[in-house]
Amino acid sequence: MRKVIKGGIVITMDEKKLEKFEKLDIVIEDNVIKDLTVDYQGDADVIIDASNKIVMPGLINAHTHLGMSLFRATNDELTLNDWLNKKIWPIESTMTDEDVYFATLFSILEMLESGTTCSNNMYFSSEAAINAIVQTKVRSIFSECLMDNDDKGTERIETFKKLYEKYKDNDLVSFMVSPHSMYTCSKKYLKECSELALSYNVPVHIHFCENEDEVKKIKKEYHKSPVKALNKVGLLRNKLVLAHGTFISDKDLKLLNKKDISICHNPISNLNLGCGIADIDKYNNTLNICLGTDGQGSGNNLNMFYHMSLVDLLQKGLHKNPLSMNSYDVLKMATINGAYALGLEKEIGSIEVDKKADIIILDMNTINSYPSDDIINNIVHNTEVINIDTVMINGETLIQNHKLLLNINKDALKDKMNEMMMRLMK
Amino acid sequence: MRKVIKGGIVITMDEKKLEKFEKLDIVIEDNVIKDLTVDYQGDADVIIDASNKIVMPGLINAHTHLGMSLFRATNDELTLNDWLNKKIWPIESTMTDEDVYFATLFSILEMLESGTTCSNNMYFSSEAAINAIVQTKVRSIFSECLMDNDDKGTERIETFKKLYEKYKDNDLVSFMVSPHSMYTCSKKYLKECSELALSYNVPVHIHFCENEDEVKKIKKEYHKSPVKALNKVGLLRNKLVLAHGTFISDKDLKLLNKKDISICHNPISNLNLGCGIADIDKYNNTLNICLGTDGQGSGNNLNMFYHMSLVDLLQKGLHKNPLSMNSYDVLKMATINGAYALGLEKEIGSIEVDKKADIIILDMNTINSYPSDDIINNIVHNTEVINIDTVMINGETLIQNHKLLLNINKDALKDKMNEMMMRLMK
Repeated sequence: MRKVIKGGIVITMDEKKLEKFEKLDIVIEDNVIKDLTVDYQGDADVIIDASNKIVMPGLINAHTHLGMSLFRATNDELTLNDWLNKKIWPIESTMTDEDVYFATLFSILEMLESGTTCSNNMYFSSEAAINAIVQTKVRSIFSECLMDNDDKGTERIETFKKLYEKYKDNDLVSFMVSPHSMYTCSKKYLKECSELALSYNVPVHIHFCENEDEVKKIKKEYHKSPVKALNKVGLLRNKLVLAHGTFISDKDLKLLNKKDISICHNPISNLNLGCGIADIDKYNNTLNICLGTDGQGSGNNLNMFYHMSLVDLLQKGLHKNPLSMNSYDVLKMATINGAYALGLEKEIGSIEVDKKADIIILDMNTINSYPSDDIINNIVHNTEVINIDTVMINGETLIQNHKLLLNINKDALKDKMNEMMMRLMK
Repeated sequence: MRKVIKGGIVITMDEKKLEKFEKLDIVIEDNVIKDLTVDYQGDADVIIDASNKIVMPGLINAHTHLGMSLFRATNDELTLNDWLNKKIWPIESTMTDEDVYFATLFSILEMLESGTTCSNNMYFSSEAAINAIVQTKVRSIFSECLMDNDDKGTERIETFKKLYEKYKDNDLVSFMVSPHSMYTCSKKYLKECSELALSYNVPVHIHFCENEDEVKKIKKEYHKSPVKALNKVGLLRNKLVLAHGTFISDKDLKLLNKKDISICHNPISNLNLGCGIADIDKYNNTLNICLGTDGQGSGNNLNMFYHMSLVDLLQKGLHKNPLSMNSYDVLKMATINGAYALGLEKEIGSIEVDKKADIIILDMNTINSYPSDDIINNIVHNTEVINIDTVMINGETLIQNHKLLLNINKDALKDKMNEMMMRLMK
């Protein structure tokens, strides 16, 4: 099957080439990008007209919890600790696998409608989540949340192993070892996670230095700085995705190896829960920086464009310097840097020949985003759901002309969410 | 003509009553709210069905420049000074009245589509702007931008006087005296502005302490603090709207009279231009705090919901305390506090009997904003253009079921904007 996306302005995010933001046709054979060319004249089974539109790589949400769609906007006036202990964890403990399946399905629709094609999903009941992922044909990382502050630590690792074996050949599902955090896992368990990730050759994904309290807790427990503590349990040997990293000292930053360590910035969640503002400008020269929305509970929503806008604004405001960040760097965080963090940089994150066709088309001709002299800055700050025209994952078109092509009854799903809300939140 | 908005959950923003967020019917006679009642059974010429929707006061944008739609997202990596001197002012100096008319018309559509029903528009070519305002039947403050750093200072004041006389009886147009700033106006001119506002009994609207550079400039020029400088030119006698107020010292804050002074917070613009983050939490107990988007150039867009989300997030992040702001206070800034700042608190800003019917209806049942256990927090953070169902100003429905009822050809207007872009930006 040959599809051609014709006539759009293409933002490739291809770091090896200088971006020209020119009109290009994209030739896709099955799930792979085969050619990028001016005015393609060859055959095609399907032509997708992208004239007057923007074509770019699908967005990569490098830290989220897809089962949390029920908790949208539940965090007003709550600290991270109170929110988790008094609100989220008691409710989550009563959620069934079926609840997680529907909540995940709902989050997937939200991501698709806002242009995200791949997510790194740390949650529990992972097989239920994988079912939603497989059903909707979106790309996702399976990140069963591992912790041993109860008696289920070993069981969770067994779940990871079982699901890895079952789905390892699935094109759309990848794996990470995801210990929840250094304050919910014992040293022994973290060492086990590090070994597990090395033996399965997958990255490790962990909440890290989300707020100042956590930094204090780690220092108290380990009698050393958080990065030295990471090293103590063996995790500096792993390819790492450190979610949040809101507070990493200059000294600790020097100990982090540039090559294989990513910070996944979650600006909205960090603000909502009063954690603070991560100094991304400081990390940018040392580490790979990608972007996450966190769950809807603390991140408000899964629309990566809304979160991208904040990244740019916050750094400029924090440093009182408009030069401390630019929109293209933000777009990198949400695409190619995310792919790198997840170990998928050879497959996704940019529009390049031989990469998988994870592509979105934006129509920026609506009143809210028109006109603009700066295509990238406009995309980063003014893209809403109404601007997401087409979403393709692995060569398959899942949204076209704003219409969801998946066989999902949105109204029935909303009713199900409402029923869960009534049952679980009371 | 009697219209009834039936069956919606009403957010009244009525400070005299405890909000109950209950289902209420709103009875409107011509342009005035006549009754708020449970299950109205009387006659009606028009019934607007708001079941499963949210009904709230239209938003009030207390500081913007509607002629700047052309400059959307033009500010990446530019300081306030460079952006104004190298980009904006040279282009603005070539804009004709007709350009300002079309740019204003475009901004009005953007505001309507995002639920704003009243704006405080500081710009030049005001009669052209008023024409767009009158044509579209939106509510607006006419704020001809006054400055005397060229030879047109007196002419600008004459324009104000002439237009005041011409439009003072227009229901939808109000007036303010708007000296641009203390660094673009002489002391003598500012005194004249203060006298002018007192004699016409209208508030004064001025950019004030937008960044640290400006504070330094004022101190250097006046040999006193910015608030003492305001007093020196007589402006502390006026009802004031201080746009930005990003940097006001604790000492200066004590000198500001609570009653008649409003800070109009413009968080996005302040971040974009590297000005910093205003400590709204500090001002909240002393002054009336309202919200502005600034122009699209520095504010990205005129969608007050996007800007509201930032207000809440920024204060929580700045203070590392989720209790430092809440969503209901943010909604107040964008409604009743805005009305107070503009001297219109007896007419608009809340849904109360005898107030003008400036009302919006939100449909929060879309994937991006569903479900939610916290109606206010969800509205503040998750409202996009797709959620704006109906917009009514002064009793007249301008958008209904997402459809613009005004006789404006959007495509022709977009073509016109594009033509202006090509001509002016090159």
